[in-house]
Amino acid sequence: MPAGLRIAPTSSTRAISLLRTVQFTHPPTCPCHSNPSHHHHGPSLHKSPGIAQARRTLATPIDRSRQKEYAFEMAASSIRYGPGVTKEVGMDFKNLGAKRVIIVTDSTVAKLDAMAQAHQGLSREGIEYTVFDKVRVEPKDYSIKEAIAFAKEYGPDAFLAVGGGSVIDTAKLMNLYTSFPDADFLDFVNAPLGKGLPITKPLLPLVAVPTTAGTGSETTGTAIFDLVDKKAKTGIAHRYLKPTLGICDPLNTRTMPPAVHASSGLDVLCHSLESWTAIPYYERTPRPDNPIKRPAYQGSNPISDIFSFQALKSTVQYLPRAVKDPDDFEAQSQMLLAATLAGVGFGNAGVHLCHGMSYPISGQNKGYKHAGYAIESPIIPHGVSVAVTAPTVFRFTAASNPERHLQAAEAFGVDISQVKKESAGEVLAEALQEFLVDLGDQPRGLKALGFDSGDIDGLVEGTLPQKRVLDLAPNLAADVETEREQLRGLFEDAMSY
Amino acid sequence: MPAGLRIAPTSSTRAISLLRTVQFTHPPTCPCHSNPSHHHHGPSLHKSPGIAQARRTLATPIDRSRQKEYAFEMAASSIRYGPGVTKEVGMDFKNLGAKRVIIVTDSTVAKLDAMAQAHQGLSREGIEYTVFDKVRVEPKDYSIKEAIAFAKEYGPDAFLAVGGGSVIDTAKLMNLYTSFPDADFLDFVNAPLGKGLPITKPLLPLVAVPTTAGTGSETTGTAIFDLVDKKAKTGIAHRYLKPTLGICDPLNTRTMPPAVHASSGLDVLCHSLESWTAIPYYERTPRPDNPIKRPAYQGSNPISDIFSFQALKSTVQYLPRAVKDPDDFEAQSQMLLAATLAGVGFGNAGVHLCHGMSYPISGQNKGYKHAGYAIESPIIPHGVSVAVTAPTVFRFTAASNPERHLQAAEAFGVDISQVKKESAGEVLAEALQEFLVDLGDQPRGLKALGFDSGDIDGLVEGTLPQKRVLDLAPNLAADVETEREQLRGLFEDAMSY
Repeated sequence: MPAGLRIAPTSSTRAISLLRTVQFTHPPTCPCHSNPSHHHHGPSLHKSPGIAQARRTLATPIDRSRQKEYAFEMAASSIRYGPGVTKEVGMDFKNLGAKRVIIVTDSTVAKLDAMAQAHQGLSREGIEYTVFDKVRVEPKDYSIKEAIAFAKEYGPDAFLAVGGGSVIDTAKLMNLYTSFPDADFLDFVNAPLGKGLPITKPLLPLVAVPTTAGTGSETTGTAIFDLVDKKAKTGIAHRYLKPTLGICDPLNTRTMPPAVHASSGLDVLCHSLESWTAIPYYERTPRPDNPIKRPAYQGSNPISDIFSFQALKSTVQYLPRAVKDPDDFEAQSQMLLAATLAGVGFGNAGVHLCHGMSYPISGQNKGYKHAGYAIESPIIPHGVSVAVTAPTVFRFTAASNPERHLQAAEAFGVDISQVKKESAGEVLAEALQEFLVDLGDQPRGLKALGFDSGDIDGLVEGTLPQKRVLDLAPNLAADVETEREQLRGLFEDAMSY
Repeated sequence: MPAGLRIAPTSSTRAISLLRTVQFTHPPTCPCHSNPSHHHHGPSLHKSPGIAQARRTLATPIDRSRQKEYAFEMAASSIRYGPGVTKEVGMDFKNLGAKRVIIVTDSTVAKLDAMAQAHQGLSREGIEYTVFDKVRVEPKDYSIKEAIAFAKEYGPDAFLAVGGGSVIDTAKLMNLYTSFPDADFLDFVNAPLGKGLPITKPLLPLVAVPTTAGTGSETTGTAIFDLVDKKAKTGIAHRYLKPTLGICDPLNTRTMPPAVHASSGLDVLCHSLESWTAIPYYERTPRPDNPIKRPAYQGSNPISDIFSFQALKSTVQYLPRAVKDPDDFEAQSQMLLAATLAGVGFGNAGVHLCHGMSYPISGQNKGYKHAGYAIESPIIPHGVSVAVTAPTVFRFTAASNPERHLQAAEAFGVDISQVKKESAGEVLAEALQEFLVDLGDQPRGLKALGFDSGDIDGLVEGTLPQKRVLDLAPNLAADVETEREQLRGLFEDAMSY
């Protein structure tokens, strides 16, 4: 067992972790006591000992930057689900009053049945449209900018995205910068790489038709891309980026090859596990001074929990079937639904370490080419790069909330009735390893992807800028030096399982 | 045991019921075979035996009115939840760009802290507003029309509803008829009492701040009222009626007296149980020929299920505590969340017999005045009128899907490991009866509300027009005469438990 595994918690982090565990199982306390300027109700409301206690604990001078969140906001896009629903999409644009639409896709999806239906649907309703089919898989800032220029020139009043996460994300950004034509590209990009400005008005309608069961992008307000000159994966996240409607048609995911089913499904697995274990929303700082500044990634909350846990259970049940039998339409349909449910879960709660660490893993690929991907260049598919560290990550985060990690292990079929809390991380890690090995064709750690200990510094430095997701990671230290050490330990531990 | 209990299913309804049970546990089959005009993909996609089977079963000539649904649409409003969040509401209207707002409330809520915060919030942001505080509890068409006239005269650009279901429902209709000023009141009212026209464009922003934990109206596209000259409860239902944002602040439900906690909570209980047991969406007819005609009440579906079942579990756990201890802030907070979750569940799936039968029960009240309600006139609170028939209703519906009814019984703490499927209804009915008795102050049947067997004809005739919800009731016959007999049996059985 590599040294990195034994990241000994100090007594203070242990105490914080325990406190989190306790608070996690209770609803947040009355917040008005930590914010005297908004104290609008009388003392008669404060008989409950829980609230009196909260008063004593929280009645300290206010430092806004350290004040914890007290609310969460759940914003789901509309989702329509059913085998064959793609054929309704023309009527949707007619109903929306759209007169000039851009269909956004990539060169592969452009040839699939989903796109044929998009063409037919819009034509049948007599809606004028054009097609942008130059979306780059794993978009870069320059590919996004090219797409935006196309959109600005055409001047659409609505967008239709047909494809996987890259397509839907690109369409979101075409929509954003068409609505804010004078904005600088970095204005809305996540801080610290960009300015992280909030989006101040609703965008044009965007209907998303996913053709993979993975990203859940049809439900989220997130768009991810590479910022080439910073050598970093980053993105833009805001509720207003969410598609108006996600059309989830299981007939559209039948075209995925088994390897794509597997890696897309592993993305779903990590979306659900990471959002389920993210710090609770009421541990997030700072508390926003205006609701418009409340981030989409807010930490786990009682509504995201429902989606994330259901998605986890479905993925464990159906992903192996969907990968092993290309004709298992039931399993494929359930995986599309799971991807969407996980999208609502992590779209409102966030992801953390698997995703934060995956960006440099994919970006610093030294030549690995994943089996079953019919492309020339080296590729570590996104789902593979998130899942490869998962056993390590959840072994590390378990101390923050052993009960949740045990519940997750139970979703994998582990009998947890006799398992001690201290073993929660180990038990979940083992369940994950077994699941990944049984799925087949998965690298058993970073070594299998071609990394060695000499690469760790680079991987750590590539992870540190992912502040938006690292902030949601339980057990991660606030000071950068300790955080760097912890990440180093995690990458070391993830070398092989 | 009264005769009404023994509604013997015929062999054909038994077969249908069995078929439903089987289909309910499987995803819907590929629909394109029942709709040859939309057959866009090749035969290579149809290797799965499940799909081949569907082809044989479904490839009959099309009668559109009998063609079953193949898709569902989940449309959730945004929900913000947290103790103290009401204070953010002024900023929300500022962020929405609102300049002229109507606050809708009733004369009781007008004096509560939630309203004080609404005033302060809008004033602080310098937003012009007026207050309409004449909402009638259990609204009538004339009280709604008065509210609409007020709104048309003021010409707002946004609405803020602060109150219970009656307030939020009234605000939805003020918003609707301000946006369609030339519409006749009956245009959008549910058929057959009204014309049931679909709403064809989005309305003005409406933010809803619930002060009870019951209706879930802050998340639904439904508004309920009495149509006085028809002596019937009816309503308007469409996605566009949904509030833009529901602000769920558990500090606002602390003012509910215990009797109101109880009856509001029983509404939540029935919302969750009815939507959980409603016919599955793919058994609903007709399949809409345009997605805009897909009703909000679509039948149970995999997403509504998640919400409904979680709400059921929370209600069983927290409602007794919230009723018994006015200082149990945790239980109150959880009940507000459960009400909202159930709202998302039934708002997308629908309710059925408890609600359908409750309208004549409340409307034909012969003088019953529920304990703990501080008003002069007789009242059967909505939650009481839905729960009073619940044991009877779920005993009746259980044959349609014994597994689901057993899972519901399990949520009440029943050990179902040894229970046979045939006993599912009886077991759930007993669990419900015990729950209602333990809650305290609940009428043990219609007799306790002052009804006797001479009232049954009137109650049945008052239920039959509730087509929108009766269509979602499992086990209910399609022909009116049998349906009438079944309802008669149900009311008879519900006389006492």
